[in-house]
This record gives sequence, C-alpha cells and structure tokens, in this order.
Amino acid sequence: MIEFYHWEPTSNSGEVLICLKEKGLDFAGHYVDVLAGQQFSPEFLELNRYGQVPVLVHDGKVLTETGFILQYLDATFPDAPLTPASAEDRYWVGVWIKYVNEYMAPAAWKLGAEAIAAQAGAGLKASLARAPLERQQAWRKALDGFDSVDREIARGLLPVRLERMEAALGQTPWLAGEDYSLADIVVFPTASALPHVAPDLVNAKATPRVLEWLERMRARPAVQAALAMARTERPEQAFAPGPEGSRWG
Amino acid sequence: MIEFYHWEPTSNSGEVLICLKEKGLDFAGHYVDVLAGQQFSPEFLELNRYGQVPVLVHDGKVLTETGFILQYLDATFPDAPLTPASAEDRYWVGVWIKYVNEYMAPAAWKLGAEAIAAQAGAGLKASLARAPLERQQAWRKALDGFDSVDREIARGLLPVRLERMEAALGQTPWLAGEDYSLADIVVFPTASALPHVAPDLVNAKATPRVLEWLERMRARPAVQAALAMARTERPEQAFAPGPEGSRWG
Repeated sequence: MIEFYHWEPTSNSGEVLICLKEKGLDFAGHYVDVLAGQQFSPEFLELNRYGQVPVLVHDGKVLTETGFILQYLDATFPDAPLTPASAEDRYWVGVWIKYVNEYMAPAAWKLGAEAIAAQAGAGLKASLARAPLERQQAWRKALDGFDSVDREIARGLLPVRLERMEAALGQTPWLAGEDYSLADIVVFPTASALPHVAPDLVNAKATPRVLEWLERMRARPAVQAALAMARTERPEQAFAPGPEGSRWG
Repeated sequence: MIEFYHWEPTSNSGEVLICLKEKGLDFAGHYVDVLAGQQFSPEFLELNRYGQVPVLVHDGKVLTETGFILQYLDATFPDAPLTPASAEDRYWVGVWIKYVNEYMAPAAWKLGAEAIAAQAGAGLKASLARAPLERQQAWRKALDGFDSVDREIARGLLPVRLERMEAALGQTPWLAGEDYSLADIVVFPTASALPHVAPDLVNAKATPRVLEWLERMRARPAVQAALAMARTERPEQAFAPGPEGSRWG
C-alpha cells in the first residue's frame, strides 16, 4: 500500500508522480496545499518533521527525499525498470539528482519566487513559526522577495548544468544513456520551468536539445497522466500521522 | 588504473580517500592545492570544468561528484562491499549523500570560512576569474567573510540533520543500518569538523551518539590511512588533461 502526499504535479512532487505512473502503481493521493501552509500543520509535521512535500509512505516507511524515493521505488517494484544497467550510467542518475537539488531547483525557485509569493495565502505566513528553522528562512526570503544579488546568484547556478544537459543529450538520447531512466524523470519538472523563469538561458537557440527532450518527455503517457493530477485527482483527505518510533522522517 | 586528484584528506576528498583505502585499491594521487587556486588552473579546468576537487579518473572516465564516485567505486569494485542489501538501507545512503551536500557541508564551510580565508594565498584570488560563475560567487563570499546573517542561516541547516544522526545511531550502530556503509564514509569528514565550528550544537551532551560514532570511525585503519595522506603522500604531479570528447566532466 502506497500513500502519497504531494503538492502540484510540478517540482519534487511531479518527479514521484511520473515514476508512479510509469510503473503503473496504485496509490492513495493526498493533496497538500503548500501555498496555504498545510505542510507546516501539526498533523503534517508529525508525518514529516521537515515540513516538505512530497512524502511517500510504503509499508510503514516514511520517505521524504525525492530522488531517493525514486530509487527506492525502482528497487522495490522492478517491473518497467528505470535504473541503468552500468555503473557509469547509474553514476549519472545520482549526479542528476544532485544537480537538480543543488543547482537547477534552487535557481528555478529563486527566479520564480515572485509568482509563488503572489499566490501564497495568509495561512502560509502564519504557519511558518512551526516550521524547522531552515524552512522558515527559505520561505521568509521567498515571501519577502529575492533581491537582484540573490537572483544573479541563482542565475549563476544554471549555465554549466545547462551545458551539461546539452552535451549529454548530444551523446545519448536520454540524460543517463541510451534508455529513458530516473535521470530524465528527476530533471523534467524543474527543467520544464526554466524556459519561463530564465528565457534568455533556455531557448531554441541556446539549448535546442533541452527543448527537444522536453517535448519528448511531455509526449510520454505517464508524464501526461502526472501533469493531469492537479485537475483530476485532488482528494482532500486528512493527513495520517507517521508511524511512531520508526527510523523514518 | 585509477588517478585521483584531491586536496586535504578532509571534506569531499576525504570521503573518496577513505573508500579507496577501505577497498585497498591502488591509485596515483595528485595533490591539488585549493588554497593556492590550483583547481582553477587551465590544466585542471581541462580535467574538470567545474573547478572542484576531488576528481577520480578510471579507465578514461572522469568522475567529479563525490557521493556518486563512492557508489561507482562500490559497484565497479564489489569486494569489501559498502552498499547495504535492502532498498530501505540504500535509500538512506542516498539521503545521507544529499544531507551532507545540501546541509552539513555548506554549514561547515560557512562556519569555518574564516580559518580557510586566513590560509588562502594570493594565487586563489587571482585564479577566480577563470572559475565558473557559481564557484566565483562561492569563493568571493568566503574570502570576503560571511556576515552574521549568513552564519545564522548556516547554523540553521544543522539542527534537524544532527537530530537525524542521533536518532539513526540510536536505532542501528551505523548510519544506514546494521553494517558500516558508504553513508558513514560520506558523513564522516564533514561531521568531524562540526565539534570545532559549531561546538554548542555538537558536543557530548547534545550529540553523544555522534561523538561516539566519530571515535569508532577514527579507529578504522582505512580512515587513519586516509587522514595520514596529507603528511605522507603528496606527490606534486602535473595535471593530466581529461579525455577529449568524452561524456564526462
């Protein structure tokens, strides 16, 4: 039994949704309204003390880190494998998880923060006092608005990783080798945002292979099913508390 | 044949050195003086455009991302395995790689930057213009000195991960289960610095299990061999250029 707590089918939540759909796994979905601060409600913090989505609960195990949730799912449900066979290609799966976490997602977050702040409800600000210090700091800065130095630093994270994407897609059809893999799933939701938040860096002239790969990703039925989740499947269920005394969370 | 480019046996370079020693692998070591800016020399940038150590070259493959270098080594040289058997424990190896990269190492870096800046040579500042933008930004801030807000944000990254370490070490003897694994190797060099840069957060009262685990780590022959590298094995070799047209770097 899989329980899945997610926000919009973008960013980290989107990665796991695509993986679940690629594998055809059944799950109970719980929509967590991040812009209303539901991730900092006492019930959700009992499930994940870090106050972040997504969270996947499988057989009492509470998993909170997206890239490694994907690897866990692929190891636990080996049909329709998404992990490359060679150590070299597997190295790249790990590296793309890191590049998204440390470079591409923080850049997209800072460059897109204005739109996020504009949609945020009063509940989010009111809930921040319950968040871990690192989350408070991240959200306060996003809600107050990043200054031009922050935005320039965020843009500075993108060029070498975009060049790496272009180079990888010039050598193999997918990011970690000849076959579609977790690497592509991990990068897709964040990369989808880049033509909008950094159009001078991600466009048909500067990054033609990235744009072509985005189109191939969007054509996959599993990706389309995941992207449709916000409109079709938003069960408003109560949050279930995490298992007590577990090694998770 | 393994070529290994490293700085001091601390931080990221230390993780790979410990893994090489645990597995008893022969390698040609190349010392890169980071505080003199050698990582931004044209020769080194030809090897790793990101201008970062460590770099491991195996059979023409240039690997630059520490946690995933460890996973590559363990998959390629399976004797003395360091990867847990279960998907659950393997999830934690990945998560600890992430926690070090995104929380613990940035905190240790910012809280310890003053000492690093005091040792930096003029060559480092002069070499920065050749560095990727993201590296320039990171080093300029370290050399100019982090302000009190930066330091408070850095400290804010530590508490929840330290609590996670304490909790994990209360449930199993090692960070990712019953057996010593890559998770322990990944965390050790950064965790070693924390009692010095954040003594109020990491001490015998607040984090007793972390301190006990640090002692168990330091007692391992492979860890001692890695820590001795700075004193005994610093071959001053010229940097070898990376293989042209490879998918690496």
